[in-house]
Amino acid sequence: MSAQLNNRRRGARPAIAVTCGEPAGIGPEIAIRAAWALRDKVHCVLLGDAAFLAMTAADIDPDIRISSLSMMAVRNAGVPHFGPDRITVIDIPVSAHVKPGILDKENGRAVLATLDAAIEGIQAGWFEAVATAPLQKSTINDAGVPFSGHTEYFADKTGTKQVVMMLAGQPFAPDDAPPLRVALATTHLPLKDVADALTQEGLGRILDIVAHDLKTKFGIAAPRILVAGLNPHAGENGYLGREDLDVVGPAIAAAQARGIAATGPYPADTLFQHKYLKDADCVLAMYHDQGLPVLKYATFGRGVNITLGLPLIRTSVDHGTALDLAARGLGHADCGSMIEAITTAVSMADAMLNNQ
Amino acid sequence: MSAQLNNRRRGARPAIAVTCGEPAGIGPEIAIRAAWALRDKVHCVLLGDAAFLAMTAADIDPDIRISSLSMMAVRNAGVPHFGPDRITVIDIPVSAHVKPGILDKENGRAVLATLDAAIEGIQAGWFEAVATAPLQKSTINDAGVPFSGHTEYFADKTGTKQVVMMLAGQPFAPDDAPPLRVALATTHLPLKDVADALTQEGLGRILDIVAHDLKTKFGIAAPRILVAGLNPHAGENGYLGREDLDVVGPAIAAAQARGIAATGPYPADTLFQHKYLKDADCVLAMYHDQGLPVLKYATFGRGVNITLGLPLIRTSVDHGTALDLAARGLGHADCGSMIEAITTAVSMADAMLNNQ
Ligand SMILES: [Zn+2]
Ligand SMILES: [Zn+2]
Repeated sequence: MSAQLNNRRRGARPAIAVTCGEPAGIGPEIAIRAAWALRDKVHCVLLGDAAFLAMTAADIDPDIRISSLSMMAVRNAGVPHFGPDRITVIDIPVSAHVKPGILDKENGRAVLATLDAAIEGIQAGWFEAVATAPLQKSTINDAGVPFSGHTEYFADKTGTKQVVMMLAGQPFAPDDAPPLRVALATTHLPLKDVADALTQEGLGRILDIVAHDLKTKFGIAAPRILVAGLNPHAGENGYLGREDLDVVGPAIAAAQARGIAATGPYPADTLFQHKYLKDADCVLAMYHDQGLPVLKYATFGRGVNITLGLPLIRTSVDHGTALDLAARGLGHADCGSMIEAITTAVSMADAMLNNQ
Repeated sequence: MSAQLNNRRRGARPAIAVTCGEPAGIGPEIAIRAAWALRDKVHCVLLGDAAFLAMTAADIDPDIRISSLSMMAVRNAGVPHFGPDRITVIDIPVSAHVKPGILDKENGRAVLATLDAAIEGIQAGWFEAVATAPLQKSTINDAGVPFSGHTEYFADKTGTKQVVMMLAGQPFAPDDAPPLRVALATTHLPLKDVADALTQEGLGRILDIVAHDLKTKFGIAAPRILVAGLNPHAGENGYLGREDLDVVGPAIAAAQARGIAATGPYPADTLFQHKYLKDADCVLAMYHDQGLPVLKYATFGRGVNITLGLPLIRTSVDHGTALDLAARGLGHADCGSMIEAITTAVSMADAMLNNQ
């Protein structure tokens, strides 16, 4: 992190890698709009096809200047400290002409190359964090690379055994609501497989990661984690399923014994109320649809996806490639979630620097 | 309903039965407070132990007058049209002295008798609807009566084969949010049993009941129902579970063919956003913790539980007996949900009268 510290001490804006995602989706547009909107505070470095990004930027606003760099140049000399009068792009060229709204497997490998460049750049000290625009898994798989998602790819490439998906955002009401953070014990599983996927050991590792990352990446000294029960009413003493007694409860007790301020299991429809949330830093939901509907509702769709457990800071928008919007041309996509992803990455980088 | 129509035509307040629930819980207090707060608009008829309710009322506010009637008197002459200067009670005596916070199985049968009286009174035209305070299932079971809940009891006593639990409330933000209504396809089941509990036929009956009751009891001419998928991302074309393709989707298609404006299955974390909710009358969630956390969050704990499918209007608070609060004495319980339950029952009664 010393490169970042030196950078910040010189008064430079924090440098954040922004991968532009699927080129035929709304990723390029929202990356450009967000980078431009944030230019006074954040040095966003866009990773994508420079020619396509320059063309897109010109269509969005002729005032936007793009400075394009090759990976080679950056490897030799690092990322220049450009001023906020332009957007920096590192050119990761696509193979086939991009037609908005139309997927082309020829461009799958270029999308992956942007992720590799982000990791390389964070490790080399070019960037303090990465914020990712949405990609299309099928394009990459169709390009012949087995790929199950951003999160798994970052874990794999950084040798991380376990990661935890967290969504976070600012509730739109009430005015004094603290940020809402929801981590998931399981993610993209059929509902019927959720109960069997939970183990005491697994939940213990997840609680460790959540507590560790809230400390180191969010600067929360003693994070308070509310844990939801798996079953309705947290199993109602075993009448509605035994897992909360046999698995979730013991995992929480063991985490407490390790000094983690986790409590529960609580009924999900009880804990997701302001009177409980206002005294908590994070909710750990047992599965996708137990935690994310409230998060999306509360943040008006302005949630940020954060991968906990990685040796780097990675945030992401909480929506997809929206090929239908991209096909209709520029001006239909909302860059709000991209802006949130970048500003969240910056605050996390701040917390990490303060922690050093 | 003609008794009610005549009653209303004479300018009388709508008469709503309010069962006071477990006497050792907060039910008696919140029933009295709500009845008193609403007295200018609603003729609440409290069903419970008259002596205990009179004593409780005197402790809450010495100005509250209680007029107590026996079931015998009401059977003979109906419920008198008292004015709003008092609270009407139909005396259903407990067997053992009530000690707030301490359950006593001796009083289990008296609680059931208040439910019976509510049903009898609605059928006889004394009341337009019933709003129930929370009871303690265990007290009734310990009294030797197999009992699985208010909802099942009302279904059984009215010969209703299938009921649907719905929670509804007014979101606290944004200002223009329509009421949020969430019906549940399954309710109090261990999570691992949810997937197997769903069938196309069962979902079809549930959609019929939801659509029918939104029409007849809520006055919504062509109710629009958003149906959540069972699996995350509504199964993502079968990659995350087949039930949304094989069960939920076909049930929706069949309901549409019967003229019901149901759509879906949608990912739960997508549909619970204002941009979709604002054009819908009801969400059908597949299970408890998919639907209720958002409802509780959005309504700040001011949800009302409504039993659809019954031949009568029944609403309920969305919280429990709070024995701990009751044990601490009067003045700790919040009657907000009881007020919502009663006013919701009145609006539903209005809609039914307008439909006749
Ligand atoms: Zn998801
Ligand atoms: Zn429940």
